[in-house]
Amino acid sequence: MQAELAPTPEPPYVAVIFTSLRTHSANDGYAAMADAMDTLAATQEGYLGHESARGTDGLGITVSYWRDEESVVAWKRVAEHLVAQRLGRERWYEAYQVRVARVDRAYAGPHR
Amino acid sequence: MQAELAPTPEPPYVAVIFTSLRTHSANDGYAAMADAMDTLAATQEGYLGHESARGTDGLGITVSYWRDEESVVAWKRVAEHLVAQRLGRERWYEAYQVRVARVDRAYAGPHR
Repeated sequence: MQAELAPTPEPPYVAVIFTSLRTHSANDGYAAMADAMDTLAATQEGYLGHESARGTDGLGITVSYWRDEESVVAWKRVAEHLVAQRLGRERWYEAYQVRVARVDRAYAGPHR
Repeated sequence: MQAELAPTPEPPYVAVIFTSLRTHSANDGYAAMADAMDTLAATQEGYLGHESARGTDGLGITVSYWRDEESVVAWKRVAEHLVAQRLGRERWYEAYQVRVARVDRAYAGPHR
């Protein structure tokens, strides 16, 4: 799939910055669950888009964008997502950080 | 180098979310400049840390963390950084988005 930046609206909106270090296990269902969560998130009320990257050093960053704080809290409580969160804690991540932030300004480029 | 998550303090602080699609040119000085900017950013007043990842699809995310908005604005104006920004616009990026956000809450895991 062609990578794309998330086409977010004018601020303000909410960004959830999820950064993680993966465990070294392979074939542990992670990729399938990540795809399923991307698909499910996109159906949620208030979802605006997301961007995701993981480097060869194992550090991954996913930023999801939401209309407001209520949408973020609701998504955190979706049943299938709770299962993914539990497996993440138990199996997939050496370490992670979740940061919830309000985007106040944004600009795109390049304008050549 | 071992990947590490940025050890940020308690919120509030500022996150600059830079997402980009690279052009397909190789050996264009990008990697060296990226390293130099990482090193230089770390010397700036108000710098708290950063995290960076680029996937095989060409989408990259760098999130840098700053004490306050003033630190962000000052870093944007540093002379060497202005050169990097110009080369980014002219040469390195197909597309990018910069989002400046105030981190209101954060938590780390896993706690097994």
